[in-house]
Amino acid sequence: MARYKLTLEYEGTRYSGWQVQQNARTVQGELLEAAWNAFGTKELELMGSGRTDAGVHALGQVAHLDVRSQLDPRVIRMRLNDGLPADINVLDVSIAHPRFHARHHAVSRTYLYQISRRRTAFGKRYVWWIKDPLDIEAMAEACAVFEGFHDFRSFTRDDPDEKSTTVELQECYVAEAGDLILLRIRGSHFLWRMVRQMVGMIANVGRGASSVADLRELLRKASALPATVTAPPSGLFLEHVAYEDEDLPPEIMPTIRI
Amino acid sequence: MARYKLTLEYEGTRYSGWQVQQNARTVQGELLEAAWNAFGTKELELMGSGRTDAGVHALGQVAHLDVRSQLDPRVIRMRLNDGLPADINVLDVSIAHPRFHARHHAVSRTYLYQISRRRTAFGKRYVWWIKDPLDIEAMAEACAVFEGFHDFRSFTRDDPDEKSTTVELQECYVAEAGDLILLRIRGSHFLWRMVRQMVGMIANVGRGASSVADLRELLRKASALPATVTAPPSGLFLEHVAYEDEDLPPEIMPTIRI
Repeated sequence: MARYKLTLEYEGTRYSGWQVQQNARTVQGELLEAAWNAFGTKELELMGSGRTDAGVHALGQVAHLDVRSQLDPRVIRMRLNDGLPADINVLDVSIAHPRFHARHHAVSRTYLYQISRRRTAFGKRYVWWIKDPLDIEAMAEACAVFEGFHDFRSFTRDDPDEKSTTVELQECYVAEAGDLILLRIRGSHFLWRMVRQMVGMIANVGRGASSVADLRELLRKASALPATVTAPPSGLFLEHVAYEDEDLPPEIMPTIRI
Repeated sequence: MARYKLTLEYEGTRYSGWQVQQNARTVQGELLEAAWNAFGTKELELMGSGRTDAGVHALGQVAHLDVRSQLDPRVIRMRLNDGLPADINVLDVSIAHPRFHARHHAVSRTYLYQISRRRTAFGKRYVWWIKDPLDIEAMAEACAVFEGFHDFRSFTRDDPDEKSTTVELQECYVAEAGDLILLRIRGSHFLWRMVRQMVGMIANVGRGASSVADLRELLRKASALPATVTAPPSGLFLEHVAYEDEDLPPEIMPTIRI
């Protein structure tokens, strides 16, 4: 049995998220089908570093693939891409350690969120367009509140698979790039909807609808009212999954010029 | 009667080009419908700086609009955008001189063409993906051949509306941006399919399938075999239309990060 590590990008617009489902088009589903064809067998296993929701994109999702046949990683990549639709692209295939696990061994995940201050003919699928004026200073202050160890129970929906709601965020900051406001959030792991609920609240602070003190309250009293604004999936990108001894993602930058 | 100057961007993927047609979705058609609603009348005229083909995009198309009612340009822009689909976006509306003509008074048009050296999950609609290795030096040499006054008869399809096939190109150059190869072509005006046939031949030179001497021959003997490769519309953007006393477009850069 060989184990391969795959790195891939996808535009999530047309998909019901990463996780394979019956009667729904998913990224894992498309990738499995391409792998069945590439290896000529359905006896294989594919495990992602984590799920992404419907409409969420990835610049660097990681998965591991177990299969009996051994092939040159370059051939695997070529065959997979030949079988995949244009909005899913395998960036890299490498031979992995037999015990490498895409989910368990990830030390951090980095998300990029793009807010646009203007209507754009090209960006609709890749941004959250906010018409209201946004106070960037206040948003930066809001971001800083999230860094460190916190109980994020107010920033998730109930997920029976999650035992703990305590998460360490190594990075949470805002940057401007022309008409785009970029948020980068890096953490050990993420709860269901957590990034989009965080971004929703950070945007609320930017609009003046919530205060930084409100955010602190939400983090302190995990039982308080949950975050009420969930940012749309279109602006969200799983940017990078890091494993031990690997580089962190490069300087923050937008995915589109708008 | 008031005349307004409109500047707009659009993603051309879903449209049968700029020019209004019966039974086909066009950018001008969508804009006219939005204008009928914005002004509450069908008595108006809309003239673009030039046509763009099916699938071709625009970052800065210009048009003039004649209508009896007078409105604040900011209100016009807002009403038009409220009525337009997300892939067409009016960037600016201003009051124009009554004799301003979007087509006749344009002194130059600038096109951007994006070639991608790699498959990309996000770029398919915005690039021409070329798998073969490309020699950028040779492409730069090919570009230089086009600058100046030339008879471009070999680089167009017959168009009964065109009287002359002589065009002045002020700029034709290539630049690299990561995995993208960008071509910028600025000229007094353009013949039908001319940019895409030029790009097709420049790419052929990059691949080694044609020589710079072949290009010179095509330009010299306008009656020779026409250019045989037409670049796909997806990579093409009408970037800027310049009028007297106006700025030229800024530094060349890609529309997407891929």
